[in-house]
Amino acid sequence: MAEFIAPIQRLIEEFRRLPGVGAKTAARYAFAVLNFSEEDADGFAEAIKGVKRDVYICPVCGGLSSREGECDICSDQTRDAGVICVVENAKDVMTMERVRGYRGLYHVLGGVLSPLDNITPDKLNIDKLISRVAEGNVREVIIATNPTPAGDTTAGYLANLLEEYGVSVSRLAYGIPVGADIEYADEMTLYRAMEGRRSLG
Amino acid sequence: MAEFIAPIQRLIEEFRRLPGVGAKTAARYAFAVLNFSEEDADGFAEAIKGVKRDVYICPVCGGLSSREGECDICSDQTRDAGVICVVENAKDVMTMERVRGYRGLYHVLGGVLSPLDNITPDKLNIDKLISRVAEGNVREVIIATNPTPAGDTTAGYLANLLEEYGVSVSRLAYGIPVGADIEYADEMTLYRAMEGRRSLG
Repeated sequence: MAEFIAPIQRLIEEFRRLPGVGAKTAARYAFAVLNFSEEDADGFAEAIKGVKRDVYICPVCGGLSSREGECDICSDQTRDAGVICVVENAKDVMTMERVRGYRGLYHVLGGVLSPLDNITPDKLNIDKLISRVAEGNVREVIIATNPTPAGDTTAGYLANLLEEYGVSVSRLAYGIPVGADIEYADEMTLYRAMEGRRSLG
Repeated sequence: MAEFIAPIQRLIEEFRRLPGVGAKTAARYAFAVLNFSEEDADGFAEAIKGVKRDVYICPVCGGLSSREGECDICSDQTRDAGVICVVENAKDVMTMERVRGYRGLYHVLGGVLSPLDNITPDKLNIDKLISRVAEGNVREVIIATNPTPAGDTTAGYLANLLEEYGVSVSRLAYGIPVGADIEYADEMTLYRAMEGRRSLG
């Protein structure tokens, strides 16, 4: 006899595909599903299939959409089409959307430049960004890649590319998180916070 | 627009049903599934349905089985039918099976006595245990409930019930875990370890 009976073992292996899930956590999840009602388990299974079946990529921004064609954000006429916020991946769009203040559009790169991993500019959704800017309606591009070496490199690369289109290119401010204690900030964050200091005068 | 598009939001809510999974972890899992191939996502969905469809309860021990009727352990003629290990739940059977040494059978209570939660003896799989013992082939019952107050109470209750059948009733030894440091053992564990000390003579 295997450690677990076959149907449970199989589900444990499926759960282990999820990020950060080891054998014990996967077993805990599998036994939780075993205690679901049949209806709840079917709903769960259906949701997994649904996310593959009902999620589309927006042809304009490269973000996720629940229908074919332009996503809800790109097709929203009340948003400011003059500002594009460039993010690494589709999840970042949703994170940025939690900040209710932003009313511009987005552009999803699908990653960051990383020549060592063979991720060169042609692997990213950059051409489409340039053509959106080249259309002439864009005033500002806000680059919101992560504050990592690869995110920085990508931001610099995009800033260079966009220079000739006469748009203002900015980057998210990096510094001490609101509510955090300077004592516990790492050196790079403190360095960035110093560099990005703003006059109070 | 919601924080996440509908199919993703739905999957996030499903993941949140799992024990210990909050909003951020659920979102991480949902986006991982989004990056699965269609085939992998279908396999995952199928495994969830399978665990409800293909898992049966063994009518003898109350443990899990991958078919109707007696489970692999109860029907294994090479195992010692004279020893029954009583555990709280079906998962514990699989945990005990990892200890390769044990060759007896099991009995799954389906919980422990907890009058405050309205879990009285009739709610547990106790009658069936008594009738297995009453058949006369059982020499020893090993009670492997957890070392919690409810587990202790249940063990005592079962020991009383089984007294009249003339079987030897034992309980797992509780003490310092192998490889642990006495310094970090809690008082109850140390107390149990003292109580259960064995002569080296």
